[in-house]
This record gives sequence, structure tokens and C-alpha cells, in this order.
Amino acid sequence: MPTYKAPLRDMSFLLYDLFDYETHLKGLTGCEEFTPDLIDSILEESAKFAENELLPINQPGDKGCVWDNGDVKTPAGYKQAYEKYLDSGWATLTAETEYGGQYFPSSIGVPITEMMKSACMPFGMYTGLTHGAVSSIVAHSNQEQKDKYLPNMISGKWAGTMCLTEPHCGTDLGMLKTKAELNADGSYSITGTKIFITGGEHDLTENIVHLVLARLSDAPQGTKGISLFIVPKIQVGDDGSLGERNNVSCGSIEHKMGINGSATCVMNFDGSRGFLIGEANAGLKYMFTMMNLARVYTGMQGLSLGEISYQNARTYAKDRLQMRSLTGPKNPDQPADPIIVHPDVRRMLLTQKVFAEGSRALALFSGMQYDIQTRSQNEESRKEAEDLVGFLTPICKAFMTETGFESVNLGMQVFGGHGYIKEWGMEQFVRDCRISMLYEGTTGIQALDLLGRKVLMSQGQALRNFTKIVHKFCKAVQDDEQMKRYVEPLNQLNEEWGDLTMKIGMLAMKNRDEVGSASVDFLMYSGYIILGYLWARMAKVAQEKLADNPSDADFYRAKINKADFYFKRILPRTKTLADTMLSGADVLMDIPDEQFEF
Amino acid sequence: MPTYKAPLRDMSFLLYDLFDYETHLKGLTGCEEFTPDLIDSILEESAKFAENELLPINQPGDKGCVWDNGDVKTPAGYKQAYEKYLDSGWATLTAETEYGGQYFPSSIGVPITEMMKSACMPFGMYTGLTHGAVSSIVAHSNQEQKDKYLPNMISGKWAGTMCLTEPHCGTDLGMLKTKAELNADGSYSITGTKIFITGGEHDLTENIVHLVLARLSDAPQGTKGISLFIVPKIQVGDDGSLGERNNVSCGSIEHKMGINGSATCVMNFDGSRGFLIGEANAGLKYMFTMMNLARVYTGMQGLSLGEISYQNARTYAKDRLQMRSLTGPKNPDQPADPIIVHPDVRRMLLTQKVFAEGSRALALFSGMQYDIQTRSQNEESRKEAEDLVGFLTPICKAFMTETGFESVNLGMQVFGGHGYIKEWGMEQFVRDCRISMLYEGTTGIQALDLLGRKVLMSQGQALRNFTKIVHKFCKAVQDDEQMKRYVEPLNQLNEEWGDLTMKIGMLAMKNRDEVGSASVDFLMYSGYIILGYLWARMAKVAQEKLADNPSDADFYRAKINKADFYFKRILPRTKTLADTMLSGADVLMDIPDEQFEF
Repeated sequence: MPTYKAPLRDMSFLLYDLFDYETHLKGLTGCEEFTPDLIDSILEESAKFAENELLPINQPGDKGCVWDNGDVKTPAGYKQAYEKYLDSGWATLTAETEYGGQYFPSSIGVPITEMMKSACMPFGMYTGLTHGAVSSIVAHSNQEQKDKYLPNMISGKWAGTMCLTEPHCGTDLGMLKTKAELNADGSYSITGTKIFITGGEHDLTENIVHLVLARLSDAPQGTKGISLFIVPKIQVGDDGSLGERNNVSCGSIEHKMGINGSATCVMNFDGSRGFLIGEANAGLKYMFTMMNLARVYTGMQGLSLGEISYQNARTYAKDRLQMRSLTGPKNPDQPADPIIVHPDVRRMLLTQKVFAEGSRALALFSGMQYDIQTRSQNEESRKEAEDLVGFLTPICKAFMTETGFESVNLGMQVFGGHGYIKEWGMEQFVRDCRISMLYEGTTGIQALDLLGRKVLMSQGQALRNFTKIVHKFCKAVQDDEQMKRYVEPLNQLNEEWGDLTMKIGMLAMKNRDEVGSASVDFLMYSGYIILGYLWARMAKVAQEKLADNPSDADFYRAKINKADFYFKRILPRTKTLADTMLSGADVLMDIPDEQFEF
Repeated sequence: MPTYKAPLRDMSFLLYDLFDYETHLKGLTGCEEFTPDLIDSILEESAKFAENELLPINQPGDKGCVWDNGDVKTPAGYKQAYEKYLDSGWATLTAETEYGGQYFPSSIGVPITEMMKSACMPFGMYTGLTHGAVSSIVAHSNQEQKDKYLPNMISGKWAGTMCLTEPHCGTDLGMLKTKAELNADGSYSITGTKIFITGGEHDLTENIVHLVLARLSDAPQGTKGISLFIVPKIQVGDDGSLGERNNVSCGSIEHKMGINGSATCVMNFDGSRGFLIGEANAGLKYMFTMMNLARVYTGMQGLSLGEISYQNARTYAKDRLQMRSLTGPKNPDQPADPIIVHPDVRRMLLTQKVFAEGSRALALFSGMQYDIQTRSQNEESRKEAEDLVGFLTPICKAFMTETGFESVNLGMQVFGGHGYIKEWGMEQFVRDCRISMLYEGTTGIQALDLLGRKVLMSQGQALRNFTKIVHKFCKAVQDDEQMKRYVEPLNQLNEEWGDLTMKIGMLAMKNRDEVGSASVDFLMYSGYIILGYLWARMAKVAQEKLADNPSDADFYRAKINKADFYFKRILPRTKTLADTMLSGADVLMDIPDEQFEF
């Protein structure tokens, strides 16, 4: 069975050495009193919960949920772990105090979510979706609805879902067909089928509050005619008490490649009683309230699984004796050397490592920007952060999952044939990770959002906001001899980034398909540069720390070594991407559809 | 359930338009009489067998084999399909006539194997391993052994296995521990545990002939002390009749990520009665007799699964209505456009397509070189072909599986969230394909074989043999205006290939770890150039054919369009690889092992 040790040392490095989290907290409404000691103790408890409660249920839970005549049984241990999750207060951590939350900043959820998803990604799906539903209600429901649903949802006593997808539409929600008809009592009667509903039915909570997108009979066509409804599994009285079972049922659960502990449900609404949230026809906007943060969290699934995969691959590479080093035996007393002596095994491990640590920095950076956007006392900072979060979100989602999937495959590769055997657990990480590039918007959709909506529609402003940050950093360290090897390529790429964007923009004015042709390569290219920037910053901080002769000097030396690896072996991927993103839409579009048959 | 239509049109293009297979056959011993008509009818029958008999058992068979007290039951339909496989004569196609074979050239096995593995990869594992065992016996056994085992193995009445791996050694067979002790009657008593034995036990045949690597008590240490033994599951009398059950048993089967229809067995030899093949201590050489062709075939698993994944992704992309084209509705009468209108979907499909068609050309090219190596009447041609096969084999194995895995993931990505659901079958291709980068030598092992053993140990001669071929082609078409866009980048890369090799060679003289540091990037780089060469050749032939105004002009136009896509979107991957392969071993090796802990 795989092992897992939460990377608290690296998290602490990011929080205090790299990002000055203490100062950050002081600038956020309601966070002024939170001290590093308090933050550290939360992270330590979270690490224990992940290592001791979640890791043991992850591999057994791969057997999956069981559907039985509309009921869904989660895997053994899930319910107990969920109870401990509630008892330890994890559910309420970042929620508003008004309904029982502890109102910690969203960014604290970044390392905590990472640890929980490393230890048991499918378990985290149940709690994550409830958070999403809570956010929509907090932002858009009336007071009565808030009072009725929020306390039990925030406490985790009840769960929540987001019911968007239908069999014929996922990305294209304008096509959705689920109907809502007004009842005499002001409630609505909801009828339709939703698919891919995470946690649509399960045995963890006594009630499940579905947020359902549906169309009123007189609604305009397309995305402008979609409304959002609360549809509780069990109806809730005005005093919050549970009443009759609503007319909503789980028709089946999907059999999937992975995340089998997470119930993915077909939900049938047969004249279910529902309650409109906010205004009619504004449902899509309401549903996507928390989309940015949810997407960063989804992106982190690549990081989480890459991290645990790395940890196990590293241990295996040190234990497994096979062949000799090409430069002579390193382990002469044993029949063979551990495979970590082989350059290619180290290449795989280090690739995993720089993606995990780089993505960890990116996720925390993004989470802190989200804090500023939502809770800074300074309005200008809030606006700046909002733009930055909008720019970074599709990159976090797509880049961190694509590189995460590469990482879990490398981790499996280090195990050789053993990696393919279920017992070792490495292949489960591959299967579990694979969904992350698909749901919450595929990589292709994220890439269109980044290049089309964020970068080009802002005339490049969204990008310039970020290249300025990189430029400023490069300028600040330009006289540091030890930083030259990072600053030079970074400066060059930072400039090229703008140039390429301009070129795509020019092409796109003639042909909109140039955007779709360039978008995924542009997103990956952007991701590699952003991670390069973060690795350069981490190297700089490590150099400064080393000057003080710290007791854990090796930690900082390792950071610099990894930064060097990133710049030498990973960052050059931008070379190909810079070329292919400009290769033109014609090679894609000039082929008639019929020719795809040959 | 996925659909599959064998790509006979493309195979015919390769055989007759590109490679002049008719002339090729005339130069091979025993093939002089084989006509294109005969070849075509074999391929048509093979297509029917794959489409009608194998495809239907593939998805149901994913449930896996069942182990019951030492017996192994293959999935429903496997036994019937196996019987039809025998009845149709597929088993004996390329075997020597002496023992009942039809002695077709090995290269005919390339398209046939492709079709069978597309339709049901795990089924093909049983027959593939028998072929391997037969080859070793043909090449190295004495006449008595040949007479006793070959007729029933070649006819497929009995199956064969290759028992190499042990729990503590896979790549490093020098460490193997299975013991062989001489009995009074000249037979040997074999004791040890073998793992990962494909088809070690199953219900398809009445007997299974294990070829087992073991160590005689007085054998030298390491790979020079390994002998090869025949260990039949049921002992065989001198008259070929079946006798007593041997003391060999299947202790369990592995639970794997995929290829679940293929039984992967733990085999326990408890003083099993075995018979030495050839000389003592020469077993490793004997076992690897067919390694080159077996590795090409393993490489083709990437091609096979990429092909069927492409076919289903293409159909889905044409059927699935979602969103509008960025350049305006293409399907105004429907609520949305088919997703094939989106450039990024086309990018994914075309990437799948150029890998499948490029790898198909590479596999056939390699198979034909293997024909020449083994059956040409011309000795010089045989030697040249042998060198070429040695050079191409690790590339076929590793490049075709790495790009095949990329392809099956892209096919799944085209399906969005639906791709993650088992029902559609797209995720099975991902799981089944994943093993191909691991077994028969991982990508890393292939890369060391290519760069270390083949290219550098021959002082670059193995590479020059191939760059000469590319150079000759480029020269022959250099005045063709329509070929310029291929020839210019190809010529440049062909030169760079040699330069980079020289540079690595120089570095490696100082530090052997430079080989391992560069090897995987070098292999992938080589693969992209070789496919570029083949795509340029295909484009040339297509241009020539089009000049004759053929009735299926669109087939040839599609070839040219795909060649353009390959050169614009795929070949630039060489840019990054050319950089990273020379980035130096120091960023890999200078990090102390302890620093991998942080």
C-alpha cells in the first residue's frame, strides 16, 4: 500500500520564506488575529488527518461505491472518516462566521486540500461539492433560504451538489432541457435528468441539497434562460426540521476509470419540489460564483496525486536493486545498485518533483490572490487580484492537471512492470488523476478561456499584468550573479510571451479559428513560464537562506538544485510550443471532415 | 461499445504504393510465389476475424480472468475465438513449413497483428507468447525436442510461455535465482518462482510449454550462468502423447490496471521436470532470439490502440453537438455544431491519426527489413537489414508506445467527461495501452539500448546507416517544388541528428552518465525524425498518385494534408528535445540522494 507524508516543510517554506504569509493575513478582513502558530497547528492537524484517516481508506475504496435500488453506499471507512472530518472542524474552516464558520482565508484551504486529495482524492470530492453549493447560496439566496440550509450545510451535517450536466450537454449548458414549472405555493416543480452528479446520492449525510439548473417554461433560449433551484433530497421545514422525501432519485452510478470512491450519479428529477435562487434566468451566473477557486482546487488534484506518486516512486527507486550504475557500482556489497543511480530514473523523479513543488507554489500564490480579491481592505488591490485570479485560474486548472498526469505516469514508470499491478497503488493515481483534465472544463475549454476570453478580449492586458510581475522580479535580482542562469532565460521568455500573444491576436483578427488552434499550446507555454518564475523566486529565497548557514541547509540546497533542473530540462519545452502555437489554423481546418474517414 | 473497421485501405497504400511489397516478396526465400491477391485476401480475412470475432469479446473481457485453485479461466468468448483463430490458420501463418507452418514472411504479421490488437489486445498476448517460445525452440533445441513440441505449438494446440522475471529481478536477469538440478535420467529439476508470466495458466489449450530461465548449481554468477529449459505443464511422451501433470502451478494471477483478459501469472516451479535447451549457460541468448521482432510487435500495441481510439473519437467528434464554431455556425439547423468544427478537437484527432499512420509505416518498414535480414537471398542485404532492424527496434518499441499512449489519451479527451466512463470503452484503451511502455523493456531501457548499445558502440555507424537513407530520399526529391516544405526541415534535422549524436558521444567519453541523461530524449527525437521521413515519403507518393486523377483522390489528398499537419505541429517537438538531451547529466547527478527526501 502506498505511503504518504504531508509535505509540511515545503508548505512552511512557501508560506513564510517565499510569500510572507504573516503580512498577507494582516491585510485581510477578519484574519488580523490569525498567527503563524495557529496556521501551523492547523496544517499539522490536517497532515495527521490525511495520513492517518484518509490514506488507509484510499486504496480499499478503489473498489467503488455500491448502488442498490436508489441508495448509494460509499466504500468502507468513508463514513467514519467523514464523521472525523466534521468533528475536527475541517468542514467549517473557511466558511463565514454568520452560519457557524471559522472564516479562515481561502488560501489556507490550498495546503489542506492538497494533503487531503493526496491521501484520498475521491473522499475530497464529497466535501468539495458541498463547499461549491454553499458559496452559491451564500452569494445569491434570500435570507429565508440561507437560514434554512446554510447552518447544516456549512457544518457538514448535510451535503450539497451541483446539478449542471445533462446527457446531451456538458460544456454547452445553453442546450439544457430540465424544466421548472411554478407551483401554486411559489415553489417549482423540476423535471429532467442530470448526469455526472458528484455525490448525487450517498450515505455520508442525512440530507443532500441539490443545486439544479433548469429552464422555466417562458425562459429565453440558450444560456440566458437558465435558472438555479434548490432541490433538497429530503424536504426541510421552516424550522429546519426534516420532512418528507422529495421526488428526486439516483437512477444509477457511473462505472468509471477511477475516483471510484466518489459516487458519480445519474439524478432523476420527477416533478421534484424546488425553490428558485435569486432572479429567474440568472442561474448560470449564480452557479459559477465559485468557479475560479473550484477550478484552482481541481487543478490541484494533479499536484496532490503527483506528490504522493513522487513520494512512493522515490522510496521504490532507493529500495529496488537492479543493474549497476554506468559509472561503476555504487553499492558494491549488494548484488545490484538501487535504481536511483540511473540518470533516467532521476530525470523522472525530478520531473515529478519540480511539477509538484512548482504547482504548490502556483496554487498558493493563486489562493492568496483570491484572498486579496475577496477580503483585502484595499479596493485597488481587490481589483488587481481579481484580474490576476481570472488569468491564473485556467492555467492552474489545465496546466497543473496535464503536468500532474505526466507526473503520475512517470511515478508508475519508475516502478517498471510492478507499477501496472494494482497492489502497489501507483496505477490508481494514474486512473484517479485522469479525470482532472476532463471535468470542471476540459483542458481545451480552459485554454479557450485563457487565450480567448482573458488575454485577447482584454487586448493583452491580463497577460501584461503578469509579465510586469515577472519583469519586476527579474529587474530586482539582475545584478545577482547566482541568479543570472534563471533571469536571462526568464526575461527572454517573458518578452517572447507578449510577442507571441500579439502575433496570435493579429492572426485571430482575420480568422477566429487561430485562437482555438493556438490555445492549448499557449496555455501550456504560459504555465511553463509561470512555474519558471516561481522556481526562480524559490531559488533566490533559498540562496538568501543559505547565506545564514541554517541547520537545514540541505533543504535549501535541494531547492536550488531543483530550480536548475527545471530551467535545464523542463523550461525548454517552451521552444516547441512557441513554434507550434503559431503554425496556423490552416493545417487543422483545411482538411475536409470527410477526409477524417481515411 | 467501441466500433472498429480495419484500416485495409491504408495498409494497401503502404504495401503497394509506398513499399512495393510485390517486388519485396520476390526477393525472399520461399515467398516467390506469394501474389498481392493472396496477401490481400489474407488481410481481408484477418480484418473480418478482428472485427467480427475479437472486437465483441474485448470490452466484456475487461472484467478479467478468474483464478480458482490453480486453474485460470479466460473471459467469456476467448476460448471460442481461440478455436476460430486456429481453424482459420492464423496460428501457422509465418511458421516454417517443416512443422506445419505456411511460411509467410514475418512482415505479413505486422498488419495482421495490428488488426488483432486493435480489436482485442489481451487476446493477442496468448498467441504472441507462443510464437516467441516457438522461435526459441526452432533456433536452439535439438531435433528430439523440436519433434516433440513444435507441431502442437505451431498448430496452436499447445501454448507457450516465456518465464524470465522473478520478484527481485526483471531488467536485471543476472540476479535470477530459480535453480535447475540434474536428474539421473538427464532431465532437470527446476525450482523457483517466476512472476509476470503471460499465459502461465489458462483454459485455451490442453497443454502449456513453459520456457524457463534457471541457474545450474555450478553455473557462473550473473547473466553468463543462465540456462534455458523446456518445462511442459503436462509431460509429453516420446510419441507426443500427454502424460502426467508436471509439478508446476499457478499460485495467483495479478490484478492489473488493464489487459485484464490476459492472465498474468505467478508460476511456482517445485522441482518441476524440465529439459535443457542447447548448451548450459547460454539461456539468455536463446531466450532473446526473437527479441527484435517481439519488440516491434509490442511497440505496435501503441499503434493498434491509437488506431481504434482514433476511429471512435472521430465518430464521436462528428456526432456530438456542442457549442458553435468560433467562425459562425456550421450546422445552423441543429442546436449546436458537431465538436469536430473546433480547431483543438481537430488537433487532437490529427495527432492521433498521424501517429497511427506514421507508426503503421514504421512497423511495416521494420518488418520488411526483418524479412530481408532472415530470408533475403543476398548476404549483403541480410547484413544491412540486420543492422537496420537493430537500430529501429528500440525506437519502434518505445516511440510507438509513448506516442500511442499520448494518442489514446487524446481519444479519451475528445469524449470529454464521457471518456472517463467505462461504457464508452475509451478509458480501457488507455489502461490497456499503459503496459506497453513497461514490459518487454521499459522506455528507459529501450533508450539505453538505442543510444548506448546501438548508436554509440557502433561509433555512430548505426545512425549513419539510417541518415544516409533519409539523405538519399531528400536528394532524390529536392527539385520537386511540392516537396520543399518537407525536404528542407528534414534535411536540416537529419544533419542535426548526427551533430547531436557526436556531441553526446564526446560528453559520454568523459562521463558515462551523459548517455542515460540524454537517452530517452534522443530516442524520441529519433522517432520524430523517422516518422517525418516516412510522412514525407507518403506525401511524395500521394502527389504522384494524384497526378493520375485516381477515383479515390481524397484518400491521397488526406495523406498530404496529414503530412502537412505532422510537419507543422508534431515535428517541431524535436526543438525541445535537441536542447534537453544536451542539458548535461550534472543537473540529474549532482543532487545527493538524500535531497530527494525534501
